[in-house]
Amino acid sequence: MTPDRLSRTFSALADPTRRAMLARLASGEASVTELAEPFDMSLPAISKHLKVLERAGLIVRGREAQWRPCRLKARPLKGASDWLERYRIFWEQSFDRLEGYLKELQGKEKRRGRRH
Amino acid sequence: MTPDRLSRTFSALADPTRRAMLARLASGEASVTELAEPFDMSLPAISKHLKVLERAGLIVRGREAQWRPCRLKARPLKGASDWLERYRIFWEQSFDRLEGYLKELQGKEKRRGRRH
Repeated sequence: MTPDRLSRTFSALADPTRRAMLARLASGEASVTELAEPFDMSLPAISKHLKVLERAGLIVRGREAQWRPCRLKARPLKGASDWLERYRIFWEQSFDRLEGYLKELQGKEKRRGRRH
Repeated sequence: MTPDRLSRTFSALADPTRRAMLARLASGEASVTELAEPFDMSLPAISKHLKVLERAGLIVRGREAQWRPCRLKARPLKGASDWLERYRIFWEQSFDRLEGYLKELQGKEKRRGRRH
């Protein structure tokens, strides 16, 4: 079974090397050698990561025979972001609860401070 | 090597069954049986998915001996959303370019229409 698009996107992002590659490409296109540079990794390992990103539609590679620069394609990231957005209310709720709890604690501390 | 938190989150989201489980839990806590119901899947397979979600900190399970309801924990989703947010400018840019291109096309169509 071919994984659906969203699963492919999330799966491609589930690796720190691949996320670092995307971060590098956010500042402009780069060759495979340039992308490999910061990592202590074999070229085949680097190529494998790039293939995952390419299959997920997160990068495209230029057609120039020698220097085939990679370029970021952010479109699939929008799908991932839209999916997560539906849950925003939940993490904001939990922050509100935490904030409320901290305020309550601070209030207690103040009252205690006044007594001493 | 233990995967980092963000990789664990993205990896847990890289499956349509697990995403459907989170969507179900967004409407309130549920037992394993309730969560399993919409899927044509063995209970061990369901349990495996739940363990992935639990390890990623996306759900917690109640302590009641018999009925151990699962509950959504959205906090890790914030981390994923924050990471994606940095790329928003890129997908918005590509929409702008697409929009510009479509307007240009429509303009051409109009001019052509006027000539005929």
